[in-house]
Amino acid sequence: MKLGLRPATMTHAELEEGKTLQLDFTKLQKVANCGADVLPAIAQDAQTGEVLIVGYANQLAFETALECGMATFWSTSRNELWIKGKTSGDYLKIQEVCVNCEQNSILYKVTPAGKGACHTKNQAGVARSGCYYRRVRDDGTLEFINDEQR
Amino acid sequence: MKLGLRPATMTHAELEEGKTLQLDFTKLQKVANCGADVLPAIAQDAQTGEVLIVGYANQLAFETALECGMATFWSTSRNELWIKGKTSGDYLKIQEVCVNCEQNSILYKVTPAGKGACHTKNQAGVARSGCYYRRVRDDGTLEFINDEQR
Repeated sequence: MKLGLRPATMTHAELEEGKTLQLDFTKLQKVANCGADVLPAIAQDAQTGEVLIVGYANQLAFETALECGMATFWSTSRNELWIKGKTSGDYLKIQEVCVNCEQNSILYKVTPAGKGACHTKNQAGVARSGCYYRRVRDDGTLEFINDEQR
Repeated sequence: MKLGLRPATMTHAELEEGKTLQLDFTKLQKVANCGADVLPAIAQDAQTGEVLIVGYANQLAFETALECGMATFWSTSRNELWIKGKTSGDYLKIQEVCVNCEQNSILYKVTPAGKGACHTKNQAGVARSGCYYRRVRDDGTLEFINDEQR
């Protein structure tokens, strides 16, 4: 299976709700181009184990997370601190912060304080708990991992 | 808490087994400098939910993973394809591959075929199941998340 480049015409709805696989392999070049020194920061639901979201953290985001107890990222698109859900109240309360063997990524184990950690919503209008709601099928298209996510 | 830069003298043993937190926030700059177009690729144990490892995948790694059914990364340090555990037999058998909302990261849900997914070993000499075996304490040092990891 060969995957093409992401069409410039792909809408947000197609990208987020569609069945067409169009991975953006230039992501980390874009991240690096934001100029901030960041590492990957994963948020995982401490109770269910669901991987909720992957973002990026610089030193400020990391220190802010430890201080305020909410999963915090550095928005590499807006180039600003992003305490996820702080404004809405749907923040991710930190249970523990783990580091990997080589100390070049972090794992926030969290309890979601409110609605889903993903900015998308299912057809019922409910925020999805996490961002990984679709899987790759054998034919290279995407499908929702269950009806609740659809 | 202010964190210093990683001391040049920090050994692998200190980095991987020690209690000193020294995150490498330059990681994604290094990844970008490898020249490959990559996105973050997380491997999670499909049964236990444990986040095992975070690596990077380019299009070749992603396609290889789908074809061979083993979690595959692009080694950004060696700049080569890395089918994790293929040689040793301790590969990560893919159960499903999920993509996030914005299609700029992937999640391998896997069943470890052999020993731990981390290259480090605990004091008993057993490979650790995953890389996130230490958490950050309130005083900014690290501790093992349980005795088994120590």
